[in-house]
Amino acid sequence: MKPVRVGICGLGTVGGGTFNVLTRNADEIARRAGRPIIIEQVALRSTNPECDLTGIKTTNDVFEVARNPDIDVLVEVLGGYDVPRELVLTAIANGKHVVTANKALIAVHGNEIFQAAHEQGVIVAFEAAVAGGIPVIKSLREGLGANRIEWVAGIINGTGNYILTHMRSEGRAFEDVLAEAQALGYAEADPTFDVEGIDAAHKLTILASIAYGVPLQFEKAYTEGISRVTAEDVEQADNLGYTIKHLGISKRTEAGLELRVHPTLIPKERLLANVHGVKNAIAIMGDAVGPTLYYGAGAGSEPTASAVVADLLDVARDIATDHHYRVPYLAFSGIGEDEGNLPILPMEDIVTAYYLRLLAVDRPGVLARVATILSEQGISIEALIQKEATEGELVPIILLTHSCREKHMNEAIRQIESMADIAGPVTRIRVESLDEQE
Amino acid sequence: MKPVRVGICGLGTVGGGTFNVLTRNADEIARRAGRPIIIEQVALRSTNPECDLTGIKTTNDVFEVARNPDIDVLVEVLGGYDVPRELVLTAIANGKHVVTANKALIAVHGNEIFQAAHEQGVIVAFEAAVAGGIPVIKSLREGLGANRIEWVAGIINGTGNYILTHMRSEGRAFEDVLAEAQALGYAEADPTFDVEGIDAAHKLTILASIAYGVPLQFEKAYTEGISRVTAEDVEQADNLGYTIKHLGISKRTEAGLELRVHPTLIPKERLLANVHGVKNAIAIMGDAVGPTLYYGAGAGSEPTASAVVADLLDVARDIATDHHYRVPYLAFSGIGEDEGNLPILPMEDIVTAYYLRLLAVDRPGVLARVATILSEQGISIEALIQKEATEGELVPIILLTHSCREKHMNEAIRQIESMADIAGPVTRIRVESLDEQE
Ligand SMILES: NC(=O)c1ccc[n+]([C@@H]2O[C@H](COP(=O)([O-])OP(=O)(O)OC[C@H]3O[C@@H](n4cnc5c(N)ncnc54)[C@H](OP(=O)(O)O)[C@@H]3O)[C@@H](O)[C@H]2O)c1
Ligand SMILES: NC(=O)c1ccc[n+]([C@@H]2O[C@H](COP(=O)([O-])OP(=O)(O)OC[C@H]3O[C@@H](n4cnc5c(N)ncnc54)[C@H](OP(=O)(O)O)[C@@H]3O)[C@@H](O)[C@H]2O)c1
Repeated sequence: MKPVRVGICGLGTVGGGTFNVLTRNADEIARRAGRPIIIEQVALRSTNPECDLTGIKTTNDVFEVARNPDIDVLVEVLGGYDVPRELVLTAIANGKHVVTANKALIAVHGNEIFQAAHEQGVIVAFEAAVAGGIPVIKSLREGLGANRIEWVAGIINGTGNYILTHMRSEGRAFEDVLAEAQALGYAEADPTFDVEGIDAAHKLTILASIAYGVPLQFEKAYTEGISRVTAEDVEQADNLGYTIKHLGISKRTEAGLELRVHPTLIPKERLLANVHGVKNAIAIMGDAVGPTLYYGAGAGSEPTASAVVADLLDVARDIATDHHYRVPYLAFSGIGEDEGNLPILPMEDIVTAYYLRLLAVDRPGVLARVATILSEQGISIEALIQKEATEGELVPIILLTHSCREKHMNEAIRQIESMADIAGPVTRIRVESLDEQE
Repeated sequence: MKPVRVGICGLGTVGGGTFNVLTRNADEIARRAGRPIIIEQVALRSTNPECDLTGIKTTNDVFEVARNPDIDVLVEVLGGYDVPRELVLTAIANGKHVVTANKALIAVHGNEIFQAAHEQGVIVAFEAAVAGGIPVIKSLREGLGANRIEWVAGIINGTGNYILTHMRSEGRAFEDVLAEAQALGYAEADPTFDVEGIDAAHKLTILASIAYGVPLQFEKAYTEGISRVTAEDVEQADNLGYTIKHLGISKRTEAGLELRVHPTLIPKERLLANVHGVKNAIAIMGDAVGPTLYYGAGAGSEPTASAVVADLLDVARDIATDHHYRVPYLAFSGIGEDEGNLPILPMEDIVTAYYLRLLAVDRPGVLARVATILSEQGISIEALIQKEATEGELVPIILLTHSCREKHMNEAIRQIESMADIAGPVTRIRVESLDEQE
């Protein structure tokens, strides 16, 4: 059968891995695709010592690939927003299928890109954009296609999970572990995207779009990083039976969809609490299947390449017929159709439980006042720890609340912070039970 | 678009669930399939109180469905071997696609069935046959299609895992928990298939076929149940840092493929060790992606239906083109092509570590003799626990060995059992590290 001819744009971590996996496992891949998948051209700016380009056509102009009539599928693994957007739209305009690992591109420009792909009858696949090598896009869209999805919650940023894992196992501070992660190459020199949750919000936006059939709405995602999580919070959470993880959470409620990334206390015995280091995992709840979970490497050269090549396999099988009937499916199943009108809820309206840590002057009545404020907002207390303190000194109070609406918690915190006997801001971390044993 | 017309054969646990999921989520499913999936006919012997059959064509002859010209896909959810085999072959001969949840059927008669399907150009899909609602067949074959699979290891029988979970958490005996599981409906009146590992071996046979592209060879699988695991072994394993799980394991080695189901000690901190109750999970190692894991409900009405309907979605999309190009892929990718010539290794030739428990007369020299026997077989000891005992009484000795070939362990056990100072048979449980954090 006619081979599928691939043009790889960008020969960095993921591009190099894709090149090597396609080359090394060419025989298996050809059998599984029903036809060879060959690398027709590679566009690169700097060489990759991991890749042997002997006999490969190269260029330093990625747009040459997008216009090359000998190419069926363009693999976009450059990173960034503007050049990839233009590149992908050019490839689509030239009738090429596209495989990308670029979550920022899909989360921010996806609606435009899928619309263009739909009009041209080409496929845009992006398994590698979420959770690296874990086939979670395929599992969610195809494997769980029978289900109404109720919620999705995942550890979808390896850098953040590496930092939280080591803060917990070694009782160290955020800055300290971050510096180490940077030295080891697990965190970028500018770690903002990872530790502030932007990367996770990109991925969550994509997952939610598929789960609920809504358009991509990255701008409405709530994003809170882990840079303010302290060693003390990690320890207090542990005492209460919880582990702090940086989660992307999206839930379907009657009023709308929750879409939020933030540090989260989860019970220690949950599988998600036991996902360590740079690994990723996503729990998905479907109405028929119940809770499921997908675990593996969320990043790295060959793990991510594994997902890029899986997309190439799908494209190879789909174009076998020249019908492209799967286009809307490989883009999104029923954008604006499933729950297209369900709004993304503002953070004020989400419902969750909370961990609170406050510093109080050790005086009688302080605790009673805090409890009253919470109760006036309809918030009930599940657990409370007050450390003994020397007379007159500041004493930490740790609270776990039952679920309430975030706006009521905001108001309670505002009032607590205005108390004369409370020092500094109240630390607030959300708590989710996410029972995958259900 | 033309609907896909489904005939459900058997309206028991899985058939009833399939009926209800297809009915309840009809809108979502139609959007995802690109066309409605409608229930054209149901063949049943006894009614199912969970299902409202108003307006549905029914029959009590399953073969009527297989010959009904108005049916595109036959769903076989009867159970058993002979009737389903004949039914599925009849459906195929009549040009119908087949979706089945029947692992026994696929593991034992799969080669014949896929051959027939291939000749007729129809699809036989069986996601529900392995690990219920977990989309592991799709993940392995499509999601990890870029990889050479190195090993697969899974908790793929919920009944067995329920029993081991409760033996461990409550320190109870096998028979005791089994009786409870039977009372609760988690175990059949005749639990042999589940507790002796036959069901798990069916599923493992199917997974290995897909992983390595070899024909189904259920008859070569090694199968050992959990009925001889004692509360003491569970406790001793725990003391050593391990949990006993009933695993299906298949590994690729240079000499051939391992295919075995048996109780297995795995380190407590592994995700697989933390899969509790009736839940299932499968870890899969690929050369590019590294270790991945898939978790969820391995059985139950709607979880299993979730997988049946996922297969119907695949069939619906594939037949949209009337090309059926995906047939060999939905059967097996490259049977006899990937590693078709790689033999299934006899159990004697597998390599693993071991946990041994012996009862010895407390006399000097016994331990030295045991150590010598092991060492003469090239087996080294990793850990040893000898309980203190009253003079002359039998004392348990617990050993963990490093990896060795099973035939050497067999010989060592034979010699140890023949020692005058050793009472009764040696208990031997295999140990696997299965590092998913790698
Ligand atoms: N790394 C991962 O584990 C991972 C996982 C999942 C998804 N992703 C996504 O995959 C994409 C690529 O990531 P990466 O880690 O592979 O990045 P990377 O290692 O920085 O590789 C990007 C490569 O593209 C090249 N490039 C950039 N612009 C180019 C241009 N205009 N023309 C030619 N070459 C150009 C870069 O060349 P220079 O070196 O000369 O700049 C570099 O070699 C990103 O969207 C990322 O978010 C990465
Ligand atoms: N249950 C699970 O969780 C699960 C999970 C994965 C896979 N599976 C597989 O799915 C299949 C079905 O399992 P199940 O649990 O649904 O079994 P089940 O509850 O016993 O249902 C089987 C149904 O088929 C009917 N049936 C059997 N032979 C028939 C015939 N010749 N004509 C008409 N109806 C007939 C039975 O009727 P009667 O009641 O009159 O006998 C029964 O209603 C099995 O292959 C099983 O291994 C089950």
